[in-house]
Amino acid sequence: MENTTPRIGAPDAAELALIDRYWRAANYLSVGQIYLMDNPLLRRPLLSEHIKPRLLGHWGTTPGLNFIYAHLNRIIRARDLDMIYICGPGHGGPGMVANTWLEGTYSEIYPDISDDAEGMRKLFRQFSFPGGIPSHAAAETPGSINEGGELGYALVHAYGAVFDNPDLIAACVIGDGEAETGPMAASWHSNKFINPARDGAVLPILHLNGYKIANPTLLGRCDDDDLRQLFHGYGYRPIFVEGADPARMHQLMAAAFDRAFDEIRAIQNDALTGNAAPRSIPHWPMIILRSPKGWTGPKEVDGKKVEGFWRAHQVPVAGCREDEGHRQILEQWMRGYNPDDLFDGNGRLKPELRQLAPAGGRRMGANANANGGRLRKALAVPDIRDYAVLVAKRGEIQAESTKIFGEYLRDIFRLNADNANFRLFGPDETASNRLSSVFEATNRVWMEDTEPYDEQLSRDGRVMEVLSEHLCQGWLEGYLLTGRHGLFSCYEAFIHIVDSMFNQHAKWLKVSRALPWRKPVSSLNYLLSSHVWRQDHNGFSHQDPGFVDLVANKKADIVRVYFPPDANTLLWVGDHCLKTYDRINVIVAGKQPEPQWLSMDEAVKHCEAGLGIWDWAGNEDGTTAPDVVMACAGDVPTMETLAAVELLRRHLPELRIRVINVVDLMALQSNEQHPHGHTDEFFDQLFTPDRPVIFAYHGYPFLIHRLTYKRQNHANIHVHGFMEEGTTTTPFDMTVLNKLDRFHLAIAAVKRVPDLKDSAKAAAAIDWLNARLDEHYHYVREHGDDLPEVKDWVWKKIS
Amino acid sequence: MENTTPRIGAPDAAELALIDRYWRAANYLSVGQIYLMDNPLLRRPLLSEHIKPRLLGHWGTTPGLNFIYAHLNRIIRARDLDMIYICGPGHGGPGMVANTWLEGTYSEIYPDISDDAEGMRKLFRQFSFPGGIPSHAAAETPGSINEGGELGYALVHAYGAVFDNPDLIAACVIGDGEAETGPMAASWHSNKFINPARDGAVLPILHLNGYKIANPTLLGRCDDDDLRQLFHGYGYRPIFVEGADPARMHQLMAAAFDRAFDEIRAIQNDALTGNAAPRSIPHWPMIILRSPKGWTGPKEVDGKKVEGFWRAHQVPVAGCREDEGHRQILEQWMRGYNPDDLFDGNGRLKPELRQLAPAGGRRMGANANANGGRLRKALAVPDIRDYAVLVAKRGEIQAESTKIFGEYLRDIFRLNADNANFRLFGPDETASNRLSSVFEATNRVWMEDTEPYDEQLSRDGRVMEVLSEHLCQGWLEGYLLTGRHGLFSCYEAFIHIVDSMFNQHAKWLKVSRALPWRKPVSSLNYLLSSHVWRQDHNGFSHQDPGFVDLVANKKADIVRVYFPPDANTLLWVGDHCLKTYDRINVIVAGKQPEPQWLSMDEAVKHCEAGLGIWDWAGNEDGTTAPDVVMACAGDVPTMETLAAVELLRRHLPELRIRVINVVDLMALQSNEQHPHGHTDEFFDQLFTPDRPVIFAYHGYPFLIHRLTYKRQNHANIHVHGFMEEGTTTTPFDMTVLNKLDRFHLAIAAVKRVPDLKDSAKAAAAIDWLNARLDEHYHYVREHGDDLPEVKDWVWKKIS
Repeated sequence: MENTTPRIGAPDAAELALIDRYWRAANYLSVGQIYLMDNPLLRRPLLSEHIKPRLLGHWGTTPGLNFIYAHLNRIIRARDLDMIYICGPGHGGPGMVANTWLEGTYSEIYPDISDDAEGMRKLFRQFSFPGGIPSHAAAETPGSINEGGELGYALVHAYGAVFDNPDLIAACVIGDGEAETGPMAASWHSNKFINPARDGAVLPILHLNGYKIANPTLLGRCDDDDLRQLFHGYGYRPIFVEGADPARMHQLMAAAFDRAFDEIRAIQNDALTGNAAPRSIPHWPMIILRSPKGWTGPKEVDGKKVEGFWRAHQVPVAGCREDEGHRQILEQWMRGYNPDDLFDGNGRLKPELRQLAPAGGRRMGANANANGGRLRKALAVPDIRDYAVLVAKRGEIQAESTKIFGEYLRDIFRLNADNANFRLFGPDETASNRLSSVFEATNRVWMEDTEPYDEQLSRDGRVMEVLSEHLCQGWLEGYLLTGRHGLFSCYEAFIHIVDSMFNQHAKWLKVSRALPWRKPVSSLNYLLSSHVWRQDHNGFSHQDPGFVDLVANKKADIVRVYFPPDANTLLWVGDHCLKTYDRINVIVAGKQPEPQWLSMDEAVKHCEAGLGIWDWAGNEDGTTAPDVVMACAGDVPTMETLAAVELLRRHLPELRIRVINVVDLMALQSNEQHPHGHTDEFFDQLFTPDRPVIFAYHGYPFLIHRLTYKRQNHANIHVHGFMEEGTTTTPFDMTVLNKLDRFHLAIAAVKRVPDLKDSAKAAAAIDWLNARLDEHYHYVREHGDDLPEVKDWVWKKIS
Repeated sequence: MENTTPRIGAPDAAELALIDRYWRAANYLSVGQIYLMDNPLLRRPLLSEHIKPRLLGHWGTTPGLNFIYAHLNRIIRARDLDMIYICGPGHGGPGMVANTWLEGTYSEIYPDISDDAEGMRKLFRQFSFPGGIPSHAAAETPGSINEGGELGYALVHAYGAVFDNPDLIAACVIGDGEAETGPMAASWHSNKFINPARDGAVLPILHLNGYKIANPTLLGRCDDDDLRQLFHGYGYRPIFVEGADPARMHQLMAAAFDRAFDEIRAIQNDALTGNAAPRSIPHWPMIILRSPKGWTGPKEVDGKKVEGFWRAHQVPVAGCREDEGHRQILEQWMRGYNPDDLFDGNGRLKPELRQLAPAGGRRMGANANANGGRLRKALAVPDIRDYAVLVAKRGEIQAESTKIFGEYLRDIFRLNADNANFRLFGPDETASNRLSSVFEATNRVWMEDTEPYDEQLSRDGRVMEVLSEHLCQGWLEGYLLTGRHGLFSCYEAFIHIVDSMFNQHAKWLKVSRALPWRKPVSSLNYLLSSHVWRQDHNGFSHQDPGFVDLVANKKADIVRVYFPPDANTLLWVGDHCLKTYDRINVIVAGKQPEPQWLSMDEAVKHCEAGLGIWDWAGNEDGTTAPDVVMACAGDVPTMETLAAVELLRRHLPELRIRVINVVDLMALQSNEQHPHGHTDEFFDQLFTPDRPVIFAYHGYPFLIHRLTYKRQNHANIHVHGFMEEGTTTTPFDMTVLNKLDRFHLAIAAVKRVPDLKDSAKAAAAIDWLNARLDEHYHYVREHGDDLPEVKDWVWKKIS
């Protein structure tokens, strides 16, 4: 392919010499950040007090990152490319900061860090310093959409960024440490979801410097033939750049990039002109760069090998404040870059080097795609009332909530087709989670071959399905951070697979919200269906509602958790979440047919409050407090609560019952703890200061206690939820195993009402309820199905 | 290689015909489990009432699993192999159950499911039926060490099983759905940790049936050349078996297995005899099996393609109880296997087929390695007193707790060298977590090439390091489940990467503990170091103490969480955990130099109770209750609490302070909730019924509330912990950002003591403490280091 497209602007020796100086400048600035708090240009002898008291930061990966950055600058200028730089290797911060300072973006964003000697001093000082910046590429770093702290997600972020971004190229550096992670090993297959006629391109640059913290790396020690075959098998054409001699390496790298970008252009041109090869998916170019760890740093310290070994990983020469010999090594190392050849008298990068960086928005630190809020267009949304379930008689009509929501999503696809800025992500569960209506508007992305009998696959689909929660999450993060919108639909139990990715995204949002220059990005929305109470058929491994516990640990500003009890509430919640930004919204909703409770008007009012009394379900007389509060959060707990209320009202009609439903879990908290929280007065009005509350909750009971432990009535709140009792059984048996069923809830209520609990009536009611549990136990084990009275139960208001 | 080793026992046509019948028997039993609750042998016409009311289970993958099982039986018999079968594909339960019933192990383990017609009826009925068994290979399944619910871990479990098991072969079937997951994509590299002279072998069988739930699979649609290169690059020699015609496929499969086991034997022989090829790591054989999804099932139902398509995934023909036409399809399908040709009049497998299974412990369902407790030898442990830190003066001596514990681990390696049954796992963090003493006794496993300057690498090492928490966790699980011992040392924040694997292992333990035939396996032990309070230098992404919140959701019997505050307590806790079984123990301990508090005698006593009063730290007079309780859990919170106590006692000497340290977090719970819990009386004696408790906790504060919310004094417990405030800063500044530092703790105490809080003394003390916080704020930002008074602080008892 590389023979058919002319190469553009192969650099001459003079240009390569300039690039080498630029690289040296970036290396100098990187070392300076790790070590110095004063005397940045070394225009005075290096003294102890110029060295930071705590030497933090990582040198090992940095010279390679800088080398790549300098060469990407060249090719951006030569071809006017729209490119972002995804820095995968851990602790690569010094390099990214150095390069964005050199190209001017750092000082534009942080004017206090000016582009002169005083700015350089501050740049050095702030790095890994209290009140300063972290040692990773991070939200604080201009041009970054990837935090280099937890490894493994660089490549999946890169692919997320280029979907629907035909002009964008994401150059993605992957360290050989990071390459050992599971998410990264799967991410290479993301190329099978790139449509070259519609999407941008990713150029993976696998940077093999041979070592992790204290070990060689698996890929670093692979021979080239195995590597070539591995990546060919993944669907790439590897281009090797190997060596340690800078002059030679500059030539190789320039040629490699020329070839790679020729190939990318050829693939894209072929796709656009319909000349694509008969094989569906092209093998995309990638670079395999072998360069020494800690390249250009000290070769040896105290007689021990450093450059080209794991000792170069972090701070190659330590104790420079105290140890004069070490300080000399540092000074010699830094002076070796010849700073006076790089920076002028004012500490500014010399003009002939400044011109090596691209201009304006072409600079990778200034590329708008890496600050996606700048490009974000609000999602066009239909009116949720157009999908509302008509609830003629409460509880009688049944609907699959996620199916209704799927119709809404279908029209989201239609309304935003021109903007091409919405995608749905899921691990092969879109249909299983009953969202199939979306396939009336779009298809699944599928670039490999298709068979005549395949369904709902297309190169232009906007539904992303792959059996990897890691890829779904990572693609969506990359897509959102570049200014688009999306939803991740997942089985509830298996969202734990991405717990740590959720964590890191929440941390990213917390930091980026505090940076005025980072514009808001769309919220990361989870729709967790196939939840614990409806995984009776899939068994214990599929039963886990604990993700929201993790979510609740995060900063209140960032997280929201919703349990819509029916389709209309799900419509409101889903619509609301898709309009928010800089948040993580978790929606837990059922996919099975289930009773519908609220009209759309009622749903809107209920959801806006987050929680409320369902007075149509209770039987308060309005004059005194109720005898018992039956509270619920989650679709199945809501149904079981209403069934329990019906039983109680039938058997103990004098009992005054209040029913409260909670849609927005955070609304349980105090208004001082969460923006959606309510005052103690309001909470007491609802939950009473002293009456027993039987709370049927979707997940692990503790979370309700945790959210309410400061409330006056907390000691009277008795939570029923998932107690880690699961197996393959019937839906109703799942609730019985965990005492979340109507019978146990009714028994709990009877036992807790002070005026009632020791009465003969109470004893009779409890006997009757226990007999129902016995009956259930035997019936389900004999028939393999739930009691007809339970299966066919329909809410009937007892008046 | 396959030409140099003679093939053993290539099967003739008669034997293949028998294998085909055996396969048909397994397929018949698999379909029966999904559909039937009566009439198992179809000796009567199939009626509606014979069909289960809820049709659950998955057919798609099953015939392939059965095909493989039958051929593995042949090769086990032919070569007297010691083999286990790891069933990766989701919902492969019917096949595993069918085969273990055919070989007799099922009825031996579950005598109620006899090996005749009545047993077959019960076998069918119990499958995915209330009170029965799940649809996955699971703990209930004889011969399994892998639960097929959450996908991705089959291969890593297989490798874990064969480490130090030279005679064992783990045949591991990987579905093409599962192959898309991240953990699986990384697992292929596990071969780089197999020493053929010391370990057993894994035979991966990639089963490409082309579809997931509702989509084609990525690898299923790859062409053979890309697949061959991909797996060659991973370090394998793929052998393809492709087709749909059973007769031809039997020949191909038999030949493929002959070749694969020839190659395995050759690799092992070469290693044992020193004849290994110059290249360090052999390319191990693997099978790529392409067979139709739902092979031998209905070709079409209602005019829609089923066999060879995703519609065969679950129940290929639904509604057979109600729909007579569908029932006929089912009956025809089952009769097509010709049950009378397979089972005798009593429903027993015919004798000529019975003999196809291996005998006794060679049957894969009976292999002791898949019920590791049967093989487990207790770990030999040294006396922890030999490593005790001598605490001459409390708080003055400093030690790195994990370093001391590393010395203990070193001797664990030495003492158990002959049994070769202990390994240490970590993502390149053994040295970083200060456990380097282990390298005096062993090395890291490294099979790839080494350089002369490499350190602590060896083919015979017992420390497993790879930059993948998924691999560490999965290897350890496989190692434990086959009867050995181990420890996973990990950065605290990044253990979240394996949240879902932890979940699944906890579920496995819960189920297996209830199965009398499953013998106890060693506990899964985590040592989480580099924790949130000592990741000041690595920044926000590295700061997350939330894993224990997830752990606390699991069944009380199974989980333990320890926060040893110093080296001697860590020694006791680590030693204790290594002796336990069927549990998951989480130990959170610091790696930095920190004050030592307890002598070994005191540590033993303290740890046995789980929590206790440190009377040497407080100043109660023994006559009245204290004014305030200062409680702490975690090494840094303990140090800050003692520093706060020192400040309080200096400034407010009349304040009566009680200090409580908590080592075993579960000891905070009620004895009714957790076996390590304590009674309310005991809790009240410690924490008082009414005095303010300032609780300095290592993690998110909510967990303490959750564990204590039922205690009488709960409203007075004020928890300081991680509030998701992190960045790159100094260690002490991390505690200040989260109000866990000595000054905030002391202020909290002063403000909460009723008799004190409004006094002038209190105001003066608070002013002074706030001034210290101001001083800290400015000092740290100017000097980049902590205040000397904080950094050099040493506990001094104020008398």
